[in-house]
Amino acid sequence: MKATLVGLGSMGFGMAESLLRGGVELSGCDLDEAVLKKLAALGGQPLSSPADTAADTEALIVVVVNSAQVEKVLFGERGAAAQLKKGAVIMVCSTVSPAFATSCAERVEALGLHYLDAPISGGAVKAAEGAISVMASGTATAFSRARPVLDIVAETVHELGDAAGPGSAYKMINQLLAGVHIAAAAEAMSFGIKNGLDPDKLYEVITGAAGNSWMFENRVPRILSGDYAPHSAVEIFVKDLDIVLGTGRDQRFPLPIAAAANQLFTMAASAGMGELDDSAVAKVYEQLSDIELPQKNADEL
Amino acid sequence: MKATLVGLGSMGFGMAESLLRGGVELSGCDLDEAVLKKLAALGGQPLSSPADTAADTEALIVVVVNSAQVEKVLFGERGAAAQLKKGAVIMVCSTVSPAFATSCAERVEALGLHYLDAPISGGAVKAAEGAISVMASGTATAFSRARPVLDIVAETVHELGDAAGPGSAYKMINQLLAGVHIAAAAEAMSFGIKNGLDPDKLYEVITGAAGNSWMFENRVPRILSGDYAPHSAVEIFVKDLDIVLGTGRDQRFPLPIAAAANQLFTMAASAGMGELDDSAVAKVYEQLSDIELPQKNADEL
Repeated sequence: MKATLVGLGSMGFGMAESLLRGGVELSGCDLDEAVLKKLAALGGQPLSSPADTAADTEALIVVVVNSAQVEKVLFGERGAAAQLKKGAVIMVCSTVSPAFATSCAERVEALGLHYLDAPISGGAVKAAEGAISVMASGTATAFSRARPVLDIVAETVHELGDAAGPGSAYKMINQLLAGVHIAAAAEAMSFGIKNGLDPDKLYEVITGAAGNSWMFENRVPRILSGDYAPHSAVEIFVKDLDIVLGTGRDQRFPLPIAAAANQLFTMAASAGMGELDDSAVAKVYEQLSDIELPQKNADEL
Repeated sequence: MKATLVGLGSMGFGMAESLLRGGVELSGCDLDEAVLKKLAALGGQPLSSPADTAADTEALIVVVVNSAQVEKVLFGERGAAAQLKKGAVIMVCSTVSPAFATSCAERVEALGLHYLDAPISGGAVKAAEGAISVMASGTATAFSRARPVLDIVAETVHELGDAAGPGSAYKMINQLLAGVHIAAAAEAMSFGIKNGLDPDKLYEVITGAAGNSWMFENRVPRILSGDYAPHSAVEIFVKDLDIVLGTGRDQRFPLPIAAAANQLFTMAASAGMGELDDSAVAKVYEQLSDIELPQKNADEL
């Protein structure tokens, strides 16, 4: 199979590794020259722009950050959509609004191409293992054309509907919860420290109690180690919660909990922490009070 | 061992069952005559007021709803503290503020009694199985006097400090997270339904994804079945988040996420749902929009 993957960030590169290992003839495109070299070293073909995608590419996999980038990759001046032969599938893995996914699919389908609305989760490690989760929706043809890719990159493929939109909607709900849970974890750890509790003990107690969440368990160790090197950046949740809130606003649907979390991520970004790990929202509480969060061990600095 | 348990609600009664099964000579006190009869049927001794606690009682276990009730049970006109002999232990399992626990312990210790700050979690079923979790702090003597009770009722005893206060502080942080996670679960399910998603499928996708929480997994089935018979009522989280926010206010510590969740529970209580299950906060979104939450199956009505 011949495929192109655009967006070789942490998850995108992991997926590229899996696809190459799975025998896919893979081209890749990214603005970062260094990752293109890494791709070439693994046997992939680096492209200097999406428009260089070969006409006989069967699947275009888009793993860029946001809808503006998806738009540019597909329909921009050096975009890929116009290069593809009829019948090819475009699989968009980026987190975008359901409304964007729907309109993007219409434009893609008007070109005789197929569109799989396919947001992903799992992180870089699972991507490299071929073990991500995909929340997918699209026509039966879109699914069948994307199946060889899905079989290689995913452990779980949720089939969520026969048109674009639901895939992104399920992902949007997941991001609502994930963002709120990170914000709550940061608030809880900071408030516990304010109340004199031992942060490590607090993590132990909560992870064994009803207050636990997947995000608490996953992100709090970063707060405990004081290491805010980005796995997933604060800016990602500014964006993803903006998708949530923008969709709710258009629907006149109230989202008071997501709005509070969005404000916390915005505060962190405002304080210059947008590119730090999303767990750095805890530092908003540190900046606004007399608490001290755990410091990174001097040996590791 | 001779003990008295005050507050035979769902968890209190479960603990009483465990204690009787464990061979404790147990008296019990509650405003509800029906549960006193149930206690008597199991071999417990019903008391008509805390003041009827026998002088040779070694442990007084308080499982009432809030600090006003704890105050009344211990120091009210018909309170128990004055009846106990020096050296007895009072184990307060209610969720109260750390400041209340500290001042209550001082008053108890001034009477020559011991105080274990011992909030609990786990629910009625685990209580009846002797498998609750206790977040406990207190002097070594308070722990040793309470040990026979702890050994019978608890699966996990977190030992969190050598004075009253930390036990309640750890519980407070747990309740912050639990309350936010219930509110987020309600908002997420409601917004998913607004966006046309299948609620059962949404539960399946989220419980297998990074948006999951202990509370999402535990409470959403109640939304899916439309059954809001109270396991734990909306009013409990109005109270518990008030403890969180009151403590934060006294410390001038910002808690924007907990505040948003508290408002959602307050909205539900304002709409007359205070005595429904806490998962009924989802009905706030239903009341404010055109969504329909799942209805209770007609066969079950």
